[in-house]
Amino acid sequence: MRRGFQAAAGLLHPRALPRAPRTLPGLNSASAFGSSTDALVSRFCPEKTDLKDYALPNASWCPDMLSLYQEFLEKSNSGSWIKLPSFKSNRDHIQGLKLPSGLVAASDKGDWRIFTRCIQVAGQGYEYVIFFHPAKKKSVCLFQPGPYLEGAPGFAHGGSLAAMMDETFSKTAYLAGEGLLTLSLNIRFKNLIPVGSLAVLNVQVEKIEDQKLYMSCITQSRDQQTVFAKSSGVFLQLQLEEESPP
Amino acid sequence: MRRGFQAAAGLLHPRALPRAPRTLPGLNSASAFGSSTDALVSRFCPEKTDLKDYALPNASWCPDMLSLYQEFLEKSNSGSWIKLPSFKSNRDHIQGLKLPSGLVAASDKGDWRIFTRCIQVAGQGYEYVIFFHPAKKKSVCLFQPGPYLEGAPGFAHGGSLAAMMDETFSKTAYLAGEGLLTLSLNIRFKNLIPVGSLAVLNVQVEKIEDQKLYMSCITQSRDQQTVFAKSSGVFLQLQLEEESPP
Repeated sequence: MRRGFQAAAGLLHPRALPRAPRTLPGLNSASAFGSSTDALVSRFCPEKTDLKDYALPNASWCPDMLSLYQEFLEKSNSGSWIKLPSFKSNRDHIQGLKLPSGLVAASDKGDWRIFTRCIQVAGQGYEYVIFFHPAKKKSVCLFQPGPYLEGAPGFAHGGSLAAMMDETFSKTAYLAGEGLLTLSLNIRFKNLIPVGSLAVLNVQVEKIEDQKLYMSCITQSRDQQTVFAKSSGVFLQLQLEEESPP
Repeated sequence: MRRGFQAAAGLLHPRALPRAPRTLPGLNSASAFGSSTDALVSRFCPEKTDLKDYALPNASWCPDMLSLYQEFLEKSNSGSWIKLPSFKSNRDHIQGLKLPSGLVAASDKGDWRIFTRCIQVAGQGYEYVIFFHPAKKKSVCLFQPGPYLEGAPGFAHGGSLAAMMDETFSKTAYLAGEGLLTLSLNIRFKNLIPVGSLAVLNVQVEKIEDQKLYMSCITQSRDQQTVFAKSSGVFLQLQLEEESPP
């Protein structure tokens, strides 16, 4: 039987594993494997690229989403927050890198899409943009579910919010400390999100310990009067390997 | 501040709430609101309908998925399992019914899709079929993630599996006891699911207590040699209301 992620990371053989480096948010920006958050961010956010960025406003965005986007964009200009680009596939985010050995990726040929960009018609599926705050190791995701994300009539499917949380955790975990794989996701749902409205996810890295990143998320309306859900996520740190030249 | 699902169900006012009916799986098939599982199933699975059923084999299904589908179909013919139809929207599953007052649904006009049927190109997104066992209050979901559900290159996004779990929990909760709203979802991920391969979700209702259904799920390869994830879910029982005629 395959023993899972922990085996891939050597965690099932604690005696063989050197004591995992410990990174405290705000005190040390280096990841477990030596890449600084700055280096991870600059690799993740290329200044010049031909790739389409899906995290840009379009006609489907509701006024709340547009104005909060502008607000964070202004904060980005002052340097504290960074707007993350969102490409069609994670393969585009990690160009020149590959998964650690043991996790063999399928071929690059074919039409691959990251799940949260699976629907490309503006406004029908996922509309979202993630801003990351490197110094505070936190993120904000502005999320507007479209009518293809329905669960109960008129409301977003719980699974669509779960996926949005996992994706926001995932990007935050990677940039804050090379967190690559979701180990656990615990969600408490409080209220349904109406389709077409804005939900704001606030993600915070709580601690990094023993090759794991512990994160929390609260999802609420912009005015914070309605809590949609609270969640926590644990991600495993793994270092991406350099692809050998063809 | 909106107080959430529990308020909608009256759970925040325990003194005002009559002692919730208790249903033990296998001992009593009546739901909290008096609809038997048989009645719920026959309303959910119309014998004649013009609606397209997306839970039918297509050319994209891998041999494992096809043969396990045939196996469960044969068991369905003998009456123990029921193959659930899967329509484009939950609105089609609950025709003539509406959400309880307090949860106002948006208009029926427009192109609504249940999240797990958001991608309609065969093989690219979600391929799945759910079989339900009324007497044992359990379900099996055969799930084949396509390339639009990618997370790490070549593997299904954790969020796509989370949504598949939530959806399988949701249909099981409804049919086993009018469970309508996800209260919580806890997932532990063990191994990545390769895109295009079969994952089998085994869902079991563990108990029904105080208007809540408690369920567990194990997701594994067909040969049960690889566990992809384990999860639990809690759903709130709410009775759908009859729609008043227009």
